[in-house]
Amino acid sequence: MARPKQTTSPNRRQQILEQAAGLFKTNGFNATTMRQLAEQTGMEAASLYNHISSKEELLREICFSVANDFNAHLLQLEADDSCASRKMEAIIRFHIHMLLTRYNDVYVSNRDWKHLKEPWLTNFLNQRKQYENRLAAIIQHGIDTGKFKAVHPHVAVLTMLSAVRSIEYWQRSKKAISSKQIADDLVMMLLKGLEQ
Amino acid sequence: MARPKQTTSPNRRQQILEQAAGLFKTNGFNATTMRQLAEQTGMEAASLYNHISSKEELLREICFSVANDFNAHLLQLEADDSCASRKMEAIIRFHIHMLLTRYNDVYVSNRDWKHLKEPWLTNFLNQRKQYENRLAAIIQHGIDTGKFKAVHPHVAVLTMLSAVRSIEYWQRSKKAISSKQIADDLVMMLLKGLEQ
Repeated sequence: MARPKQTTSPNRRQQILEQAAGLFKTNGFNATTMRQLAEQTGMEAASLYNHISSKEELLREICFSVANDFNAHLLQLEADDSCASRKMEAIIRFHIHMLLTRYNDVYVSNRDWKHLKEPWLTNFLNQRKQYENRLAAIIQHGIDTGKFKAVHPHVAVLTMLSAVRSIEYWQRSKKAISSKQIADDLVMMLLKGLEQ
Repeated sequence: MARPKQTTSPNRRQQILEQAAGLFKTNGFNATTMRQLAEQTGMEAASLYNHISSKEELLREICFSVANDFNAHLLQLEADDSCASRKMEAIIRFHIHMLLTRYNDVYVSNRDWKHLKEPWLTNFLNQRKQYENRLAAIIQHGIDTGKFKAVHPHVAVLTMLSAVRSIEYWQRSKKAISSKQIADDLVMMLLKGLEQ
């Protein structure tokens, strides 16, 4: 069952991944079965195994694909020469954008990473740690250049990362607030409090 | 099994509640068994039933006791005549205080409320909604009196409530940062961004 499935079309695979993320989000990874996934995608369970070898494989692909998007954005940002404030604003807006456009994937990646198997679990956690350290370095640079107040950089990073998760509530909420207003308010609250 | 257990000493009951919160937090409510709880408290499962009738009863008591603490603090604050900034600072500090002093209870109440049975589930969700509305009213008052910028009050509330949850990371983190520094940094970041 564990042989690589090279012949699956990218579209079909993408469709299975999207259905899997929805099921993981709704039921949790542990409670989701391959049978449910087959039903959801309108396939026989046996033919689902022609496309993927296990639900762990799907979880891994979701988590590492989300990590790739965050990493690519941060790499690009680190390479440009804008100030720490603009960089942090871009990061806050990108996190909100990710939650709005890849909600199920980000939700699953935030909660179900603990079900990754080794070596993926350690690798994924190291990448998250590095991501937080790189954000802390931007904040430290902002402090050093007199842009930001002398907060503890890691406290600031985790406050921001927690705060942008409030977007999840809006996804579930019935209130009609535009995503632009939410993003603008979050940037104002989180960034203006940090700036000198 | 469902008769009220009036004869249990408050201390023994408190001890069972604390062990239950620890197990719910570590294993999740669904995966926790009465047998595990009996082992943890050093009792026979049968004699545990002399003290409590079900694990749902324990979850309910944890969730509603946490709600009582938050509500009592907010009631007291609403009655005094300090400005919106001071009230919001007191609320942020109280949330941090609760996470530091009743970590397991708050953690379980934030995540496992969905396993409450009716009529408790609806009642609990209504109380949370009311709590958020009352915080939003304080922020709206701050906007009306020119203290705060014109953010959407509910966006500000959920941003703050999400941000204070970053305290959970520090509980798990190896980094030695004092709770006072975390609280001061959070108040500065969250409140200064809101103030005019």
